[in-house]
Amino acid sequence: MVELETPKGVRDFLPEEKIIRNYIVSILTKTFEKYGYNPLETPALELLSTLTAKDGAGEGSDANQEIYRLTDQAGRKLGLRFDLTVPLSRVVAMNPQLAKPFKRYQIDRAWRDGPTKVGRYKEFWQCDFDVVGTSSVVADAEVLAIYAEVFKELGLKVNIKVNNRKLLNGILRYSNLPKQKWMDAIMSIDKLDKIGRDGVIKDALERGIDEEFMVKSLDILEQEGTNAELLKKLGELLNNEEGKEGLLELKNMLNYASKLGVKDVTFSPSLARGLSYYTGPIFEVVLKSGAFRSSLGGGGRYDNLVKLLSGGAVDLPATGACFGLDTIYDALKIEGKFPTQKSVVKVYVVPIGDVLEDCLKILKEVRDSDINADIDLVGRAPSRNFAYVDSQGIPYALVIGKKELEIGKVTLKDMKKGAEKKVTLKQAIKLISDN
Amino acid sequence: MVELETPKGVRDFLPEEKIIRNYIVSILTKTFEKYGYNPLETPALELLSTLTAKDGAGEGSDANQEIYRLTDQAGRKLGLRFDLTVPLSRVVAMNPQLAKPFKRYQIDRAWRDGPTKVGRYKEFWQCDFDVVGTSSVVADAEVLAIYAEVFKELGLKVNIKVNNRKLLNGILRYSNLPKQKWMDAIMSIDKLDKIGRDGVIKDALERGIDEEFMVKSLDILEQEGTNAELLKKLGELLNNEEGKEGLLELKNMLNYASKLGVKDVTFSPSLARGLSYYTGPIFEVVLKSGAFRSSLGGGGRYDNLVKLLSGGAVDLPATGACFGLDTIYDALKIEGKFPTQKSVVKVYVVPIGDVLEDCLKILKEVRDSDINADIDLVGRAPSRNFAYVDSQGIPYALVIGKKELEIGKVTLKDMKKGAEKKVTLKQAIKLISDN
Repeated sequence: MVELETPKGVRDFLPEEKIIRNYIVSILTKTFEKYGYNPLETPALELLSTLTAKDGAGEGSDANQEIYRLTDQAGRKLGLRFDLTVPLSRVVAMNPQLAKPFKRYQIDRAWRDGPTKVGRYKEFWQCDFDVVGTSSVVADAEVLAIYAEVFKELGLKVNIKVNNRKLLNGILRYSNLPKQKWMDAIMSIDKLDKIGRDGVIKDALERGIDEEFMVKSLDILEQEGTNAELLKKLGELLNNEEGKEGLLELKNMLNYASKLGVKDVTFSPSLARGLSYYTGPIFEVVLKSGAFRSSLGGGGRYDNLVKLLSGGAVDLPATGACFGLDTIYDALKIEGKFPTQKSVVKVYVVPIGDVLEDCLKILKEVRDSDINADIDLVGRAPSRNFAYVDSQGIPYALVIGKKELEIGKVTLKDMKKGAEKKVTLKQAIKLISDN
Repeated sequence: MVELETPKGVRDFLPEEKIIRNYIVSILTKTFEKYGYNPLETPALELLSTLTAKDGAGEGSDANQEIYRLTDQAGRKLGLRFDLTVPLSRVVAMNPQLAKPFKRYQIDRAWRDGPTKVGRYKEFWQCDFDVVGTSSVVADAEVLAIYAEVFKELGLKVNIKVNNRKLLNGILRYSNLPKQKWMDAIMSIDKLDKIGRDGVIKDALERGIDEEFMVKSLDILEQEGTNAELLKKLGELLNNEEGKEGLLELKNMLNYASKLGVKDVTFSPSLARGLSYYTGPIFEVVLKSGAFRSSLGGGGRYDNLVKLLSGGAVDLPATGACFGLDTIYDALKIEGKFPTQKSVVKVYVVPIGDVLEDCLKILKEVRDSDINADIDLVGRAPSRNFAYVDSQGIPYALVIGKKELEIGKVTLKDMKKGAEKKVTLKQAIKLISDN
């Protein structure tokens, strides 16, 4: 007997929800390919040693603790991948023949046996797109163009925030904070939006960073103005090369993005993103309205990671980002932007009386016109068929009885309006296709 | 450091291969939805107890031995699913609110830690479509229509073979073979195509079935003729109700399939398919040319399985089938039907000189016309860019230099023909879109 439950932290997606997830994925896929990213698939199962390599999920890291581990029949130690970046590095290292830059996307599952909470699952999807093998900030500008295009298509008003790790480093250098404390400071700064200036100073203090350093950093980080104003102000304030380089990269990236049609990007000096491996531009997307604060996507440049993850086998700069399938789903729901269909079916054939064979021929013609169509398979009474069609949100019913067949017409019922009309099959197909 | 290998029996799919797999999946998805099947997703991780339930992969079964087992941090015993049918049964049992018949498809991974050989992997994809909740053979006829449509679209000439388990039972009953030997006999009969009449008799003998029974069965099974002739002959020879019921189901199913536009189905009385749970119509698809003998798909009706797998929680008839993604891929390769693209990119922008910003604007316009487009991101010389474009099988290059910008034109290079022409961007976009 089947247990009537699933493991904690994993989910079934019934059609109603899966249709919307597929809709999101189809927009992502179309856009990634339009921007020249090719699809890649890597296996769910990796050698455990691949996953736990240093700088991947090395010993002691959270990710390491959360790997689902297996031993196969031959005694090999395996694990379920916890992200798509480690496998990408492995693929690039194993396949030197791949032409560079290698632009790939992968929309696929990953697993982490961590604590579950709202919006956090043990089995989840990642939607990654990365370019390996170029340090051109045009590649970073394309990330912004993809974000702009996808969220426009989804009908979500978002704030695309950008910053640059070199700039953050420059600010920390300017504050005279010793270098070994930079990652700690970045972790604190990352919380500025949520906990405010005083919160950041307190958080940094707990990490052993004196207030004077943070005050000096925050005075720069909290400058306000348009992108151009901020670039100018920070350029005047910062006196070190790394900071100036970060500003130049930002300026170029924003310029290239505007040429690619991106109108609305926010330079946000305090955006930090927690991961330690970012080396240049960083990105994050949130909903404009404050109703939903989770990130809808993010990423950045990681010019050293492929070298680290491949144990030095390949040394290639890279940049990339991801979309959050679960958070986008939730945002669409909150913003009332869900497509309304509960079923992929657009028209349902309802036979009246002994007309099944004729109905099948009609069904074939409808499907031949690339309309998703279905037919009663259980011999329900017409009223029960209409109730079924209604419950599934199917927009049309095609009612066919002896009467219709005699006069060579069909009865097309618009389920939303409740209106019926007798038309030829050709007319019905046109009406359904046009709506 | 990342190990530069993957576990045995799992695979990376680099873009060249993944593009073709996506192409196959897109045809399947489109067709499933056209026939009114809705998408379902179930998790890779199931409770081990779900997977090892009796009549699923119960103790002692091959499937049971081959389950990848895991224990999570909370000590729960989990497993990676070995098929998509057990999860479907679980979903149907857990969600009584789902309207019936429930037509769903799922194209997803499954795992079996079994022996690897050519064409058999430890991590593999299944492409299943099933209807739960109707015993109408119209549902079985739709399986045939889907097979016909998908393989026509793929350009593969296939033989769609059908039979009926009730008919097979009728033939065995006619041969007077004791009922407890029927499954053994069916396993032997299943090999008739491969090992011939004498082979089957020998194989059955080894399973403890006397020659006389098999001879009597084979005399019926090896009848030849058109579908109509066979239905007639077998109807005259068989004297028991189960056999006659199987023949009637076959006749009705073939009739309905023809109304759905299916022209070419082969009634093959010896088709048996190994699985014990089939109860009515069974299907199998093989390539017409003998070059490749693996099954490209198959399935059948299983009216008792959902009840068994759900421990009696729900009792619903069901029918369904699957496509073999790996075998279809191999068949396309063998038949020379591969789409030729190695990259999704259709046009590659090659800047000549210092024209990057103008090129980005042009790139945006090309992408706005829904053309997959890319640009040099590493500042290669034009000749190296053309070599790159050529190596990726990208059909067009758009060459843009100062000269082109001055006269408001672009140079469109057809990589296959090697021909160049100066045209307006609008003309170039039209030419690329039309090809």
